[in-house]
Amino acid sequence: MIAEIISIGTELLLGDILNTNAQYLSRRLADLGIDLYHQSVVGDNGERLKEELERAYSRSNLIIATGGLGPTKDDLTKEIGAEYFNKPMELHEESYKILSEHFQRLNRELTENNVKQVYFPVGSIILPNPFGTAPGCIIEDDGKILILLPGPPKENIPMFENHVVPYLNKLTTHTFISKTLRICGIGESMVATKINHIIDEQSNPTVAPYAKDSEVTLRITAKAKNKEEGYNLIAPMEKAIQKILGDNIYGTDEDTLEGVVGKLLIDNKLTLAVAESCTGGLLSGRLVNYPGISNAVIDGCVTYSNDAKVKRLGVKEATLEKYGAVSEEIAKEMAEGVAKTSGAAVGISTTGIAGPGGGSEEKPVGLVYVGIHIKGKTFVKKLQLSGSRQTIRERTVTFTLDWLRRKLLSLYI
Amino acid sequence: MIAEIISIGTELLLGDILNTNAQYLSRRLADLGIDLYHQSVVGDNGERLKEELERAYSRSNLIIATGGLGPTKDDLTKEIGAEYFNKPMELHEESYKILSEHFQRLNRELTENNVKQVYFPVGSIILPNPFGTAPGCIIEDDGKILILLPGPPKENIPMFENHVVPYLNKLTTHTFISKTLRICGIGESMVATKINHIIDEQSNPTVAPYAKDSEVTLRITAKAKNKEEGYNLIAPMEKAIQKILGDNIYGTDEDTLEGVVGKLLIDNKLTLAVAESCTGGLLSGRLVNYPGISNAVIDGCVTYSNDAKVKRLGVKEATLEKYGAVSEEIAKEMAEGVAKTSGAAVGISTTGIAGPGGGSEEKPVGLVYVGIHIKGKTFVKKLQLSGSRQTIRERTVTFTLDWLRRKLLSLYI
Repeated sequence: MIAEIISIGTELLLGDILNTNAQYLSRRLADLGIDLYHQSVVGDNGERLKEELERAYSRSNLIIATGGLGPTKDDLTKEIGAEYFNKPMELHEESYKILSEHFQRLNRELTENNVKQVYFPVGSIILPNPFGTAPGCIIEDDGKILILLPGPPKENIPMFENHVVPYLNKLTTHTFISKTLRICGIGESMVATKINHIIDEQSNPTVAPYAKDSEVTLRITAKAKNKEEGYNLIAPMEKAIQKILGDNIYGTDEDTLEGVVGKLLIDNKLTLAVAESCTGGLLSGRLVNYPGISNAVIDGCVTYSNDAKVKRLGVKEATLEKYGAVSEEIAKEMAEGVAKTSGAAVGISTTGIAGPGGGSEEKPVGLVYVGIHIKGKTFVKKLQLSGSRQTIRERTVTFTLDWLRRKLLSLYI
Repeated sequence: MIAEIISIGTELLLGDILNTNAQYLSRRLADLGIDLYHQSVVGDNGERLKEELERAYSRSNLIIATGGLGPTKDDLTKEIGAEYFNKPMELHEESYKILSEHFQRLNRELTENNVKQVYFPVGSIILPNPFGTAPGCIIEDDGKILILLPGPPKENIPMFENHVVPYLNKLTTHTFISKTLRICGIGESMVATKINHIIDEQSNPTVAPYAKDSEVTLRITAKAKNKEEGYNLIAPMEKAIQKILGDNIYGTDEDTLEGVVGKLLIDNKLTLAVAESCTGGLLSGRLVNYPGISNAVIDGCVTYSNDAKVKRLGVKEATLEKYGAVSEEIAKEMAEGVAKTSGAAVGISTTGIAGPGGGSEEKPVGLVYVGIHIKGKTFVKKLQLSGSRQTIRERTVTFTLDWLRRKLLSLYI
């Protein structure tokens, strides 16, 4: 079975609303193991909608169309569906009853355009809509299936889950199981190069790399009869990739870098203090994303000014004068200072030039030093990053979290 | 000119990512007065992409395709574009130079698949990408225009704004001039209600409200022969809206809330220190987004633990014991303490329960206290926010910045 999603609404073409339905339905079709090769969007225009249906059925046999079921003249989806399948429209008594009662409760007159919402192509399966006035429907004809759902997500999603999923489950014999490997400290193209032979030889499961913010994910997807068979198919490929990428993989599925670091700290009963200059609070902010973090992170200082570095962290004025705030020496003193002044086992620090101004030939924009003080020793890394002020700061945060993760793994595991 | 958007990427068909590019580009095309009747999505599949191009050119003459410009084998968009227009690919020397320098700076090897990103169909207009490794391009042939943009929004949007908008403006006889009013502290539906009569009477210019992350924007768009005429058309409507919404409008166009607050502090020669508990560094991080901020923000403390609140800020243990860390009294002592210990003129603080755990009947998840110490006085606001841990923290940050802005306006302007 090949599916296709058609989203209907001029508001989508004007960019007034975001097409969250297409994402939701695509993800659920993937979960159900139904192939999807096309999504499309058309406005509230009968002719173009009909063309779109004809095109879609030339390459797919299951069309899910969202939107255009409402009471206004613009809402044409059911009418065009009926025309395509050459079926007359008829009133659905039960839906009419529900609709009249709804209007009675609201003390509103049931106008003719509202009644249009309970007319359906003859022979349709009706999908009730407890969250709105327009029911959906399924039309089956000659091996083609057309599923019509309302546009608003709060109506669309429950209708899909409660009525369409059980319907589709009866039609499929297999399911798709996915596992995502989360990777940091290595770029997308290097990941692709390293596992090139696996990508080339893939059939079932398949593997696909995606890059997002300074991280890479690999999604392994298996086609199987059930979950257990799916995970059994995924395991050997995961193992092979794990062998190649090793510690570059920091987690799977819903794991986050800050969550993994947080767990490592808590599992090893370590407390952490953070001293930030160029990242200005973002590093603390990212760590605090992890709900359990209050057991590990005990203190943070955003010492953007030299004065604060001296006062809060005990950084030496002489060091600031000799090497400048953006230097290996200051990163070291910041990491040591924040651990000492807060009594934390581990101290980390960032200092750098995020731009757009403030750079020089000797210390260009993007120059960042990161420090880690752990087990009585202090380590400093020098980075030369590129991108906007925002990107440089985000990359510094990701690098620091990843480096701390690797240090914790090498020292404690 | 009829435009069409093709979004390319299997991750879109799997529902892994939301197609925000299609919305952004659709809205901007509407602003530019260019008709758009179709959006479509295809995976990283050469054959289907080529079919999609053929279909799109059968009904439109300007295609904007996003995604598939990266370094991996999956990235096929340029290659298929070249095939469609029957143009060979050639290396673009300048882009190659930029790419090599980028890899040198990162101390990473420039692999062959990366070089693929700087090959383009002969005769293309190259669109530089300062925020990523894949430049875009424009191919013109026989009245057809194909614009290829990278998939990541942070690369896609600046490339569209800086290079595609000026290009498209040259193709149309009129121009669309927009001005965005940025609003905080009042919801989208309230904004719409207040300016309802202006929306109802609009013709040229038009005005459209959008909501995003606790902020609302009003975009005023005028159709005009040139910029001057456009701004002249916009001015009276802007004045009328300004009169209604007053201080709720914090800025225009590229202004940010943190930038406006930063400027107010600097203009009034005020220094600021920030003490954060539940926002965990996000408030400092947001302020430091503003490049000039080092002249105003002198210190920040992320005192997530009670111990750090006492040690860093001089919060009293007795107050913590009596009222708890999430209380009006602690927000007050934190704001005063951070100002005093850092020597800043203004101190701000946040303390709250971001969830998902930690709530009680008396102090539920979403309860947040925000403090401002300014001109010898301390003010505290109690908020009851809803949403995820992340949302509660972001809303706290936005509220605090907006409240500080209003305080500064009332005290210093």
